[in-house]
Amino acid sequence: MVDKFKLINEMAVDNGSKIVLLLMDGLGGLPLEPGGPTELEAAKTPNMDALTARASLGLSDVVSPGFSPGSGPGHLALFGYDPIQFAIGRGVLEALGIGFHLQPEDVAIRCNFCTVDANGNITDRRAGRIPTEECVKRVEILRQIEIPGVKIFVEPVKEYRFGLILRGEGLGANIPDNDPQQTGVPPLPFQALDAQSEKTVELLRQWWAQANKLLADHPPANSCTLRGISKDPGLPRFPEVYKMRSAAVAVYPMYKGVSRLVGIDVIEHKAETPAEEFEVVKQNWDQYDFFFVHIKKTDSYGEDGNFDAKAHVIESVDQALPILLDLKPDVLVITGDHSSPAKLKRHSWHPVPVMLAADTARFGKPTSFGETSCATGTLGKIQHVDIMALVMAHSMRLGKYGA
Amino acid sequence: MVDKFKLINEMAVDNGSKIVLLLMDGLGGLPLEPGGPTELEAAKTPNMDALTARASLGLSDVVSPGFSPGSGPGHLALFGYDPIQFAIGRGVLEALGIGFHLQPEDVAIRCNFCTVDANGNITDRRAGRIPTEECVKRVEILRQIEIPGVKIFVEPVKEYRFGLILRGEGLGANIPDNDPQQTGVPPLPFQALDAQSEKTVELLRQWWAQANKLLADHPPANSCTLRGISKDPGLPRFPEVYKMRSAAVAVYPMYKGVSRLVGIDVIEHKAETPAEEFEVVKQNWDQYDFFFVHIKKTDSYGEDGNFDAKAHVIESVDQALPILLDLKPDVLVITGDHSSPAKLKRHSWHPVPVMLAADTARFGKPTSFGETSCATGTLGKIQHVDIMALVMAHSMRLGKYGA
Repeated sequence: MVDKFKLINEMAVDNGSKIVLLLMDGLGGLPLEPGGPTELEAAKTPNMDALTARASLGLSDVVSPGFSPGSGPGHLALFGYDPIQFAIGRGVLEALGIGFHLQPEDVAIRCNFCTVDANGNITDRRAGRIPTEECVKRVEILRQIEIPGVKIFVEPVKEYRFGLILRGEGLGANIPDNDPQQTGVPPLPFQALDAQSEKTVELLRQWWAQANKLLADHPPANSCTLRGISKDPGLPRFPEVYKMRSAAVAVYPMYKGVSRLVGIDVIEHKAETPAEEFEVVKQNWDQYDFFFVHIKKTDSYGEDGNFDAKAHVIESVDQALPILLDLKPDVLVITGDHSSPAKLKRHSWHPVPVMLAADTARFGKPTSFGETSCATGTLGKIQHVDIMALVMAHSMRLGKYGA
Repeated sequence: MVDKFKLINEMAVDNGSKIVLLLMDGLGGLPLEPGGPTELEAAKTPNMDALTARASLGLSDVVSPGFSPGSGPGHLALFGYDPIQFAIGRGVLEALGIGFHLQPEDVAIRCNFCTVDANGNITDRRAGRIPTEECVKRVEILRQIEIPGVKIFVEPVKEYRFGLILRGEGLGANIPDNDPQQTGVPPLPFQALDAQSEKTVELLRQWWAQANKLLADHPPANSCTLRGISKDPGLPRFPEVYKMRSAAVAVYPMYKGVSRLVGIDVIEHKAETPAEEFEVVKQNWDQYDFFFVHIKKTDSYGEDGNFDAKAHVIESVDQALPILLDLKPDVLVITGDHSSPAKLKRHSWHPVPVMLAADTARFGKPTSFGETSCATGTLGKIQHVDIMALVMAHSMRLGKYGA
């Protein structure tokens, strides 16, 4: 544990209070035109607006001003892990994204099918973007590969992408990609950057040689490149740091995976809509102190550039909000893991609106929840990495620092 | 390069977008009376006020709350260099301020003429503040000194101040001032704090002994002290870090010098007024991606305590602004390097107003550009060291951080 975690952990007390961290993925938005509303401001959100009366509002930088966070850094920051100090490898994230239950010693790799010519030189780094069903077929072929002493998982992802996981003992992952990032040259030889990774390199050489033989007759995906070779970073355990029984309610595998990675219990359920997810919280209310609730579709529609659909998802969250409010959480935080303005069709760097509702909040003037009102809120401009400490403080779970 | 530069550099893409960073030196001000306007708020600035409709406003701490920055730290921060981590030595700053073209290996020293008595004890640390023409005469005398193996430059600055630059090979600059900071004692002996500086100390001893002989008959300036012994700190190169062809348009030598120090091209010109400086930008528009434009006189009048004259300079910038706006930069930032309130007649620690105009800005409610409106802007409270990352993000030059 690093300094701040250690301090928080030392100050943390378990007082049985209840916390809900409601995350709308990519919540932050932009006006389409000067003078216009953002997605959140355009959405009709009477419940959230009413909640501002007993809440403190602010804007939060997720990683650092100007940085557009990926899902990994965005969630790490929200959970209180400095996203520049702590990183989740891309292979691990890919595995989490497809719902693979990664074990601490697994080596996870994101792979691309590619096309090579008779000399082994890459001619297409994405194998003509083969459709997912072609990916699945070739993954079936690759599953034939067996190497003594290691368990191998090959999992389709999408189009030309698939995941490879090696499960064995003493496998390091300090190994650069073998993707040369250009065509006209062969994939790079595998190279261990430390002694612990030498065994992994030997396994990857064997696996890759067999894979090439098996794929040879299956152009355009007649070879593959291995990237983002990584392991579970062994992050400090969230429930231990904060001394809270902690649960995640999410629909998409990625967010269940990131939660699992920090030791948050993932509640299995069949919920799809915000209201259904909130019902899952209700059903499990007594079993946990802290609930992380993840709503995906705000981000999906933001990335699609669909302003109205994103606003509509926010409205559906607002309509369902009484389910959570009726549980009377001591602290309810509503925020995002980054902005995804429909105007930009991508994750963006804009600070994310935050509302923290608690009896201990310094209530402000705003009467609606939106980026503009958050800019004048009493939380001020904060950083995502500090939100958990605020949550702990407002639930009276954090003692005094120093005498 | 340190971590954050490395991250920004890795995420940076060159997409050909155009950026103007317009700096009014010492822009931030204070009301003369409670309820009154600041200099910026008193100035009639219809163009800047109109620009707020498609901009995001905020207030920025230049170094750290309460720190009143000098020109060096103020500009380093603005260029994205942490002004606490990176420092420009005072000898180097003095050399830049007089327009001396410092080479990477030069040792630069700011010197004071002083008065010593028959025993060599200092009686006046500033030699009776001799007028600049007397300074020039004595500098001419000192230029006679020659030492084999090193090229020596002596340059007048102002009144009792002059600059000394040693150009040679293997000269360190880890040497404390020989100014004892008191009278009644002799100047301190030169001392090398590392092995690389021993050669420099030997040269300084020789030079100083000869200087004292030559000055002996020229009281009150019959000796001198050497201070701020320093070299080019070898800062990361701005155009490489940000992947932008970068140019500076400035009138005063100091700001050209600081720009040159980070590798920004300095455009030579005969401009004096803001309008003339903006025309220089226009003439060079196709040659560069990033323009740093420096307006000096806001600071000069602030330091003079001339509230109206400072406001008038701001008005002249506003009147000329259409020259820049017509170039349609993708991002236009208007800010200062620190506050210089006429009320205080000095650089101050007050956060500096910032306006960032871009299609990607989160447009806010303010309809004028001033300290009070900036306090409720959607940029929120930021830090100068983060402005370049924001500029890069808003010009879509910064990729995603993490997956």
